[in-house]
Amino acid sequence: MELWYTQPQTENISFSIKVKEHLFTGKSPYQQIDVFDSEEMGKFLIIDGIVMLTSKDEFIYHDMIVHVPMATNPNIKKALVIGGGDGGTVRELTRYPSIEEIHMVEIDEMVVEAAKKYIPLTAGKLTDPRVTLYFEDGAEFVRRVKGHYDLIIVDSTDPIGPGEGLFTNEFYQSCYNALTDEGILVNQCESPFYEKNAREMRRAVAKIKRLFPISEVYQYNMPTYPSGHWLFGFASKKFHPLNDFHPQTWKEFGLKTKYYNTEVHRGSFMLPTYVREQINNAENPE
Amino acid sequence: MELWYTQPQTENISFSIKVKEHLFTGKSPYQQIDVFDSEEMGKFLIIDGIVMLTSKDEFIYHDMIVHVPMATNPNIKKALVIGGGDGGTVRELTRYPSIEEIHMVEIDEMVVEAAKKYIPLTAGKLTDPRVTLYFEDGAEFVRRVKGHYDLIIVDSTDPIGPGEGLFTNEFYQSCYNALTDEGILVNQCESPFYEKNAREMRRAVAKIKRLFPISEVYQYNMPTYPSGHWLFGFASKKFHPLNDFHPQTWKEFGLKTKYYNTEVHRGSFMLPTYVREQINNAENPE
Repeated sequence: MELWYTQPQTENISFSIKVKEHLFTGKSPYQQIDVFDSEEMGKFLIIDGIVMLTSKDEFIYHDMIVHVPMATNPNIKKALVIGGGDGGTVRELTRYPSIEEIHMVEIDEMVVEAAKKYIPLTAGKLTDPRVTLYFEDGAEFVRRVKGHYDLIIVDSTDPIGPGEGLFTNEFYQSCYNALTDEGILVNQCESPFYEKNAREMRRAVAKIKRLFPISEVYQYNMPTYPSGHWLFGFASKKFHPLNDFHPQTWKEFGLKTKYYNTEVHRGSFMLPTYVREQINNAENPE
Repeated sequence: MELWYTQPQTENISFSIKVKEHLFTGKSPYQQIDVFDSEEMGKFLIIDGIVMLTSKDEFIYHDMIVHVPMATNPNIKKALVIGGGDGGTVRELTRYPSIEEIHMVEIDEMVVEAAKKYIPLTAGKLTDPRVTLYFEDGAEFVRRVKGHYDLIIVDSTDPIGPGEGLFTNEFYQSCYNALTDEGILVNQCESPFYEKNAREMRRAVAKIKRLFPISEVYQYNMPTYPSGHWLFGFASKKFHPLNDFHPQTWKEFGLKTKYYNTEVHRGSFMLPTYVREQINNAENPE
């Protein structure tokens, strides 16, 4: 028997992974969660039918979501991860001995439980003593905090279902308020290629641009996400990701990384013309 | 009825495009050629079951294969394209009024005929008066030429079937000989991500490195190729793509491009660590 997982990446494009074993299926109050094992991609996590991570390419996403802000401000002490239930973002943060406090707010405990049981590759550092997990709505959590975090990472799903509240003006305003004066916000910012992702990217960029004096977008190659060309937003009250970049200080941490390096840091902000134009022209349709 | 084209990108990964119409199918002495129309990707060309180009993302490939060498040596006058039967590489070359001679050697006339009839978007400039088409084996063609071309672009399929001869030591040596002392060789160099592509990439890099004093690899994001992370090789007897880069001269050509720009030029050489390591460690298994 051949078993294939298939994701419709748009109405007219689909991507499939041959499956060895269906390890877990569960329906939480928020979403449908599945974990598979495969020859090509190793274990992979699916939420509401969409690839969240595979063991083979998660290093790209997690390198880029964490090391870009950390190399911009190597003095980050207090970090908040919103979403990120697989634990990969927290894992990369725990590699910095200088970070003192890592809060993770994930709405869906079942995602964390499934990752802990089946994907220790990403979930293995959730037990670090500096990490505190909160199982509640990220938008509500962050609304209650003022001037506390040096870094907020929005490691969200697409803006449908439980991820929707993490793409609103109000949410980004709460993040702004929850950051210190040196704070950095990094957010999962969709993709420029297929129109359905590009529209969400432009909406998110427009909203963040209005709030933060510094707002940039950077790219990375994520093979199992639609088109493979994916983006993070970088916004800050003070630090620019290139002008305030500290490559030498970052190298002194001595971290071995498989995707990120200080050249990739710079290159990730050098965007193709059609991406740059979308970002420059982004308005706020809310 | 729903009609889907599906490409197995590895034994365990497949990529599918919903089809509106199967416009052409033909079997030449060399390969199986198909052209489809689709909602998402427009017209697309398939050779031996593999995506060669789609109307939606061909601009990325053709921008990067042509403008990177042209911005490194804006004085290129004589160019040879090996393969490239769809005409997209020639189209980009014809945009430079300074180029005097464009030779294209494509083994399979049926590819050119199909592209001319069904995909004028890429094939529309094959009638430019500076262009001469040769329908013969590229490896044999280039073996007869000495010190003539300023630029050779190897716009080949994967190294199986008729493309195989365009990945050998002997072929690269012929290219070296056919170039002037200022000559540049750009070659389709596969991808670092899935092992089957990565192995071919390492083999090609190792062979070219042994011949040319300057040998680099650069990346671009190609949504319809496996993993979306794809590479070109850049080799030269004289010019380094960054040290001899002429952004200002290139801007003076006044070309509007959708992917390439002078920032992307720089960024495309800033490779992720796992890619850089494969390239640095590439040996020559021949």
